[in-house]
Amino acid sequence: MDLSSFLTSLGTSFVIFVILMLLFTWLSRRPGNSVIYYPNRILKGMDPTEAGFGSRNPFSWMKEAMASTEDDVISMSGVDSAVYFVFLSTVLGILVLAGVLLLPILLPVAATDNGLSRASTTSNGTFNDLDKLSIGNVPDGSPRLWAFLLAVYWVSVVTYYLLWKAYKHVSGLRANALMSSKVVPEQFAVLVRDVPPAKGQTVKEQVDTYFKTIYPETFYRSLIVTDNKEVDKIYQELEGYRKKLARAEAVYAQSKTTSNPEGRRPSNKTACLGLAGEKVDSIEFYTEKINDLIPKLEAEQKVTLKDKQLPAALIFFTTRVAAASAAQTLHARMVDEWTVTDAPEARQLLWKNFTIRYFQRQTRQYLIYAIVAVTILFYMIPIGVISAVTTLENLVKFLPFIKPIVNIGVIKTVLQAYLPQLALILFLALLPKFLLFLSKLEGIPSESHAIRAASGKYFYFSILNVFIGVTLGGTLFKTFKDLEKNPNQIVSLLASSLPGNATFFLTFVALKFFVGYGLELSRIVPLIIFHLKRKYLCKTEAELKEAWFPGDFGYGTRVPGDMLIITIVLCYSVIAPLIIPFGVAYFGLGWLVLRNQAIKVFVPSFESNGRMWPHMHNRILGALLLFQVTMFGYIGAKKKLYSLLLIPLLIATLIFAYICGEKFYKFFKCTALEVVARELKEVPNLERIYRSYVPPSLSSEKVEDDQFEDALSQVSRVNSIV
Amino acid sequence: MDLSSFLTSLGTSFVIFVILMLLFTWLSRRPGNSVIYYPNRILKGMDPTEAGFGSRNPFSWMKEAMASTEDDVISMSGVDSAVYFVFLSTVLGILVLAGVLLLPILLPVAATDNGLSRASTTSNGTFNDLDKLSIGNVPDGSPRLWAFLLAVYWVSVVTYYLLWKAYKHVSGLRANALMSSKVVPEQFAVLVRDVPPAKGQTVKEQVDTYFKTIYPETFYRSLIVTDNKEVDKIYQELEGYRKKLARAEAVYAQSKTTSNPEGRRPSNKTACLGLAGEKVDSIEFYTEKINDLIPKLEAEQKVTLKDKQLPAALIFFTTRVAAASAAQTLHARMVDEWTVTDAPEARQLLWKNFTIRYFQRQTRQYLIYAIVAVTILFYMIPIGVISAVTTLENLVKFLPFIKPIVNIGVIKTVLQAYLPQLALILFLALLPKFLLFLSKLEGIPSESHAIRAASGKYFYFSILNVFIGVTLGGTLFKTFKDLEKNPNQIVSLLASSLPGNATFFLTFVALKFFVGYGLELSRIVPLIIFHLKRKYLCKTEAELKEAWFPGDFGYGTRVPGDMLIITIVLCYSVIAPLIIPFGVAYFGLGWLVLRNQAIKVFVPSFESNGRMWPHMHNRILGALLLFQVTMFGYIGAKKKLYSLLLIPLLIATLIFAYICGEKFYKFFKCTALEVVARELKEVPNLERIYRSYVPPSLSSEKVEDDQFEDALSQVSRVNSIV
Repeated sequence: MDLSSFLTSLGTSFVIFVILMLLFTWLSRRPGNSVIYYPNRILKGMDPTEAGFGSRNPFSWMKEAMASTEDDVISMSGVDSAVYFVFLSTVLGILVLAGVLLLPILLPVAATDNGLSRASTTSNGTFNDLDKLSIGNVPDGSPRLWAFLLAVYWVSVVTYYLLWKAYKHVSGLRANALMSSKVVPEQFAVLVRDVPPAKGQTVKEQVDTYFKTIYPETFYRSLIVTDNKEVDKIYQELEGYRKKLARAEAVYAQSKTTSNPEGRRPSNKTACLGLAGEKVDSIEFYTEKINDLIPKLEAEQKVTLKDKQLPAALIFFTTRVAAASAAQTLHARMVDEWTVTDAPEARQLLWKNFTIRYFQRQTRQYLIYAIVAVTILFYMIPIGVISAVTTLENLVKFLPFIKPIVNIGVIKTVLQAYLPQLALILFLALLPKFLLFLSKLEGIPSESHAIRAASGKYFYFSILNVFIGVTLGGTLFKTFKDLEKNPNQIVSLLASSLPGNATFFLTFVALKFFVGYGLELSRIVPLIIFHLKRKYLCKTEAELKEAWFPGDFGYGTRVPGDMLIITIVLCYSVIAPLIIPFGVAYFGLGWLVLRNQAIKVFVPSFESNGRMWPHMHNRILGALLLFQVTMFGYIGAKKKLYSLLLIPLLIATLIFAYICGEKFYKFFKCTALEVVARELKEVPNLERIYRSYVPPSLSSEKVEDDQFEDALSQVSRVNSIV
Repeated sequence: MDLSSFLTSLGTSFVIFVILMLLFTWLSRRPGNSVIYYPNRILKGMDPTEAGFGSRNPFSWMKEAMASTEDDVISMSGVDSAVYFVFLSTVLGILVLAGVLLLPILLPVAATDNGLSRASTTSNGTFNDLDKLSIGNVPDGSPRLWAFLLAVYWVSVVTYYLLWKAYKHVSGLRANALMSSKVVPEQFAVLVRDVPPAKGQTVKEQVDTYFKTIYPETFYRSLIVTDNKEVDKIYQELEGYRKKLARAEAVYAQSKTTSNPEGRRPSNKTACLGLAGEKVDSIEFYTEKINDLIPKLEAEQKVTLKDKQLPAALIFFTTRVAAASAAQTLHARMVDEWTVTDAPEARQLLWKNFTIRYFQRQTRQYLIYAIVAVTILFYMIPIGVISAVTTLENLVKFLPFIKPIVNIGVIKTVLQAYLPQLALILFLALLPKFLLFLSKLEGIPSESHAIRAASGKYFYFSILNVFIGVTLGGTLFKTFKDLEKNPNQIVSLLASSLPGNATFFLTFVALKFFVGYGLELSRIVPLIIFHLKRKYLCKTEAELKEAWFPGDFGYGTRVPGDMLIITIVLCYSVIAPLIIPFGVAYFGLGWLVLRNQAIKVFVPSFESNGRMWPHMHNRILGALLLFQVTMFGYIGAKKKLYSLLLIPLLIATLIFAYICGEKFYKFFKCTALEVVARELKEVPNLERIYRSYVPPSLSSEKVEDDQFEDALSQVSRVNSIV
């Protein structure tokens, strides 16, 4: 790729971003759109206008984002978001500090060396203006390599320093969140799995006896996990009718216009999705159905609570220290019995996984690792086969009725262009969901943990396929014969193929940040969907709210995406320092846009108090290690002796990773007792805490005491997630 | 080695054993020797005559050993001994079950095949009668290899089964010991290290505030570790004078015979080890010294307790559950601050290691691993150099004054024979002590833990050097050229050199059990030392007791030794099944002799409640894996395809090790809460528990309350170890 086509691509992306930003400024000022651009503030009962709503200045959102403090972020969207911003600013800091030294030094060093033109051999055919600014322009054995060697040291030291600071800071954030004097239900609970079978006792009796013996003073009560299949079914049915009733009532109310004050009572047919059967009055029909179902639900609730107990439970304690301590200690002699762990938040429990036994969880985990490894390494094979089979001719042969459509000229051209990649596109679109599905199969008890596991898998997929795949793929077939002769050269092959691909990645990063963040900011897609739904589908307030309810950050795919960028930028930082400003722009712009989204748009669907951070930390270190190994190979190919000077750096990275893991990690896995030993502001209402964990299908309808009001609102929140 | 010389060697060993056993029967009947043959019973206040003392039957000790139950062993010498017997009987069981099938099947299969004599090629020159009974007699590619293949499976399955049963049993033993209703001080305490520095507070204040906040109900009090150098010095001096005073008084009392009713007051000189200076009356002199030192000690005690606090402490809780739970939980956000672990027994504390900081402990550990690895791999180099230098000629050159002695004929011959090996012999004798010294340097807080660490190191040393060294060493130089060409053949080289060495190991095992256990049983060496000391040195009762006080099992060297035997026997079990009876004899005789020692002689110097077991378990599995790998190489050399059938077995061993580790291991590392939640027989006297941990040099002399009597006797026990 030469300079002009690179600049064209960059320019186009930039123009798209500016257009999207202007669109955002215009759209977000319209009052009807406030639920799309300020949903988080609205849900928190805040006035959107306070947050610069209605401003004509296209940069005002930037000002607000920059003015917001970390505490604002925590109060608006939780500790996890704040940790994500620590991640963004740490990476930004690494790249800025790296760029400050590398750009003014390495670019002139490379540009003034005419090594390659002298030698007149280029490693591949893409030698051009941009490549002159990279290490590719420095000939083998040149003393100028010293500068590049020192640059590797500089980048590494900067990374160590900022990561260390960030880990300390995040640890502090987590500690503050955990020691908060507010009553947080999950801090009083633990999850018990693998209750051993016992004869002549219900699980409830067994669990209560066991924990009362060990914690005579601090045990409060237990909530036994039950088989809720039946009761859930009835509850869903009931809720469905309630929604339909509300809708029918809304339709009836709307039909009462001034011209027709009586209105028209809505009606529906009873069979076959409302298409056939007897025609009945909807309001009466649904009311009757609801009245039928309520006693049925209550009867089933009783049966479930009594006879369908499963060998798992949530235990509630009277103090936070007791719960935190119980979650970390060994209770039974055999590790596969009475496994006690932290209780996740009520809204993110994966109930189905609670009853999977210890060794089955282990087995599942390893099986799924194997499946993911196979998927990552060989996913191209089935996709290639499918692509080969799904040609237009074959399609017509199997589905003859599509022939007339296919024969239309335009459609035929489009189909022929996209059919071969259809399988790949579908695969890439479905992969995150598939990985999340697999992670949940592992037997993980909480949503946030499953998302972390899935994001790890996605990270390995992207690194392996996008980065190494593209880099190696470009040169692999050319040099396949060399490799066959000497399979140990993979590192140096990877290294030597890098500069040629640097410009490809420059474009990739640029496209991703301008277009991606532009779409993120303008929220065009959610806006259109909302307006369509409002016009044609939604009748009641609840339905409307559901239509504009914003998503969360989506860490599962967002973090691996960012990780890929930081890996690419780090790896190329010394080889082609020109990539650094693009990295800075990506993370800088990302910080701004997402800060805006965090304080105005996204509503977190869980809170893990920063447990994502150790993964981020380790993956940044992994990227650094990959960078160091690449440079080891690359400099080694240019001058063997110099590369040996990089070995201490590799060891330093491993030692740094070890020390950080030892010093900080355990606090992210367990809760430190000194943190939860802080006094609470109020005496915890244990009954309310307990009730916040009762699944909605099991919570009795009759409780209307004032003191449970909050607990019930908690339950309904759970409901909206489940 | 041919059959006759093998039988000779075997016979000699056996005769030695019989002689030693008869000697034991004769010696142990003499009343004056009862303190050597029944010290454990005497110390426990039991009558030695009850235990068959004085029997003329040389086999009565065997009957008693066999009649003793596991509970007897636990009550006489603790859970650790009982676990050691579980180890012995498990190994015995494995070998017996293996032999039952392997001997009647494999021996005829091998003996009736005339493969080798047909082929008339022997792998080495030692082909003889004994080797005819081994797999070496079966030619390459023979279908009879099937029998050997199945034998490998049989041995493995037997090992899995018995190890699983044993782990379960030991876990039960540990649980019973921990849940005992007796008050055990260490169950109420935890050890806190890495107390962070704080300004304006003493460590005592800091520790008390910290733990009172977290455990408002269960915290009892703390014992801060102090710098006891000064106070220990004064205390040692004082104790020294007290002993001398007691001795002087005993001498004085003895001198009062009927002929001289006044007696002769002993006297000594004051300077230069009692050789020079003024002559004084001993009793007066020592009494004066003691009276001088007591106030000095008290003053120093006060200063130490107040101003010499170090950042570590023992914390005492009011309940066992609180202590067990505290030892397993994370207290501070940073893992390298406020590290809380189980408190070891008071008698086995390594005080000096308490103040080593977290990351220094880590660093020391890795450094010491490196040092041990270097020692194990390259110890022959310095020893070789020393041997080369210390020839008789060189010695005479450097130390001319020994010339007249050396020139005596007999001495010269002996010296010439042993001098070259002197360095090696010294090294081997000092190695266990050196490894224990290194293990203590790691920063381990308890004696028993240090011994486990040292025993692991010693195990790797013996396996690597004795087993692999001898096996490979024998053929290495012969086939060095082959190996140079193809370095991947180490496994098959190891395998093919085995049958030739089988007879060597047969002799080794036989010698070890007959002579070793004979000496163990007869206790000739301690007996002689005791009688010499009694006659020439001991004056007081205390000195006499010190002279006959028996040692403990010495797990640090005993267990690695047994491990070496089981490794050898397992590895050869299929190749030369004739080794199995020898293994059975070794462990059977060992069980008998040591059972006798456990219930009559040895006094354990610590109790770790079976924490040795996971190490034993893993090392037996390691031996099994080595056996399987060896057989894989060996059968592979005979018939490639068959060896592939052994791969599932290798995987099975790894999975078995993983499952056992997951299921059982954690209980050996931590205390399960359900176990210590059992009720106690009495209300624990917390003051007594606390005082049992106070070092003797710091415990006040003035406490004479009745209630502390026991605590003080505990302290004096500590004293005898420190």
